Amino acid sequence: VLFLQGGATSQFGMIPMNLLGQKTQADYINTGIWSKKAIAEAKRYAQVNVVASTEAENFTRVPRADELNLSAEAAYLHYTSNETIGGLEFDYIPDAGQTPLVVDMSSDILSQPVEVSRFGLIYAGAQKNIGPAGLTVVIVREDLLGQALPTTPTMYDYKVHADADSMHNTPPTFAWYLAGLVFKWLKAQGGVEGIAEINLRKARKLYAAIDASDFYANPIALPNRSIMNVPFTLADTQLESRFLVEAEAAGLLNLQGHRSVGGMRASIYNAVSETAVEALIEFMQHFEKTRA
Amino acid sequence: VLFLQGGATSQFGMIPMNLLGQKTQADYINTGIWSKKAIAEAKRYAQVNVVASTEAENFTRVPRADELNLSAEAAYLHYTSNETIGGLEFDYIPDAGQTPLVVDMSSDILSQPVEVSRFGLIYAGAQKNIGPAGLTVVIVREDLLGQALPTTPTMYDYKVHADADSMHNTPPTFAWYLAGLVFKWLKAQGGVEGIAEINLRKARKLYAAIDASDFYANPIALPNRSIMNVPFTLADTQLESRFLVEAEAAGLLNLQGHRSVGGMRASIYNAVSETAVEALIEFMQHFEKTRA
Repeated sequence: VLFLQGGATSQFGMIPMNLLGQKTQADYINTGIWSKKAIAEAKRYAQVNVVASTEAENFTRVPRADELNLSAEAAYLHYTSNETIGGLEFDYIPDAGQTPLVVDMSSDILSQPVEVSRFGLIYAGAQKNIGPAGLTVVIVREDLLGQALPTTPTMYDYKVHADADSMHNTPPTFAWYLAGLVFKWLKAQGGVEGIAEINLRKARKLYAAIDASDFYANPIALPNRSIMNVPFTLADTQLESRFLVEAEAAGLLNLQGHRSVGGMRASIYNAVSETAVEALIEFMQHFEKTRA
Repeated sequence: VLFLQGGATSQFGMIPMNLLGQKTQADYINTGIWSKKAIAEAKRYAQVNVVASTEAENFTRVPRADELNLSAEAAYLHYTSNETIGGLEFDYIPDAGQTPLVVDMSSDILSQPVEVSRFGLIYAGAQKNIGPAGLTVVIVREDLLGQALPTTPTMYDYKVHADADSMHNTPPTFAWYLAGLVFKWLKAQGGVEGIAEINLRKARKLYAAIDASDFYANPIALPNRSIMNVPFTLADTQLESRFLVEAEAAGLLNLQGHRSVGGMRASIYNAVSETAVEALIEFMQHFEKTRA
């Protein structure tokens, strides 16, 4: 069943409250800032097993399938398919066996086809590839509903939202409407298959430009580089603020990396055209030439 | 402190979870459907004392001040200043002494001036007089923050939202923007004082037209008639569906009463002009003449 709900960050608490059932443990993969936020909230309700983490490698890759130290007693396995800030993305769907698989797909949903049937629960904030902020999409296996913890607020109970067709309370109507327009637009791009081709071209071009230069760098292992969020640094960090000023003058906005990691970050979501990515690459090459 | 949060219905659980503190009881006044929803959710966390109810009178008036049977052990007193569906509104602010007063002001906030300092907490969904659905305004006394129950989800903790200037998570940015435009528009109407004069004129005219006729009726006691939501019935209920069809043809929309009470309801929020109310009255008089 698919339904729509308030904020994506609410899901961090909703997931354990709804999916623990009679169990007390949950498995989490740690790949960066958003995994950590999900883990921190889950710890308030469950014994969290961090079954794999690449923190020691500064989150420059996602754990391999053979590194996942899954627990027999876990109610579910949670991971973040794309770390928005770190710019790393799973290149595989973890196999948790009979344990339901839960994924935060906020920043890469609808960027490329995904095998939905592999998941117990998919959640994604709308504000990247769906519509305006203030709306979250949840897709959940129906047999996982109806086992919320007794202290779960009614508005946190997935079953309430599912049973009410996402209208238990007055929904964010305008956000729904805009999301509908985005879905129509996406269909006109050839659907998820069509946009995936464009997204892959955009990402390949930008990473190629970064890799072709000693002036720019991206630290993420090749198979785990995000096709949505491309962080990069300048070899000379002194030039970063100048880069941002000149980029903005060239009409290239919001390139500052998250304050927790610094550097630059190009978020090339579905709405960012291939032409826009080419303009960024051209600017980067020009900036490098004038500074080299 | 004032902050902005997801859905208004979430507040029904947030209020006991945030305000009970060391206490276990809370006082609630029951004036209709929205009071009841607030009470139902509060019962999951607190011993709820319904300190006054006019249900036996079919919610045709609000309880008088001398009917409130307040408890010494209550963490707070909650009431609904305007019952959107029933169309009744408090004509006074209850006095709870030292007990914090909590009010659901969803459907009459900004309709007329209100003494904010009388309240421990005011909450209001945006979708009546503030902006689009999916946004709630909370105004809370700072000394009431920081005592959330241990099981309170982080996103349900008022202190988290207050400390983060309403930006603990990505807020519904477009809804904020639209609310800002509405506030500017409201200022141009002379602010809350200015709109209150218009609102009172709108309501008086509509109730006068209803009272002047035996064809239409409104059951609410005069001092408690809502200036925002005006429910009315037709003496001949057989004519109701015809009324709605012809009203819609005349450009007068959404006049059907809530399915739980039937009849008609004119919601004459700030955005509804005096001219629109006059058009409704004219239509009602015309409809009556052609059917009498």
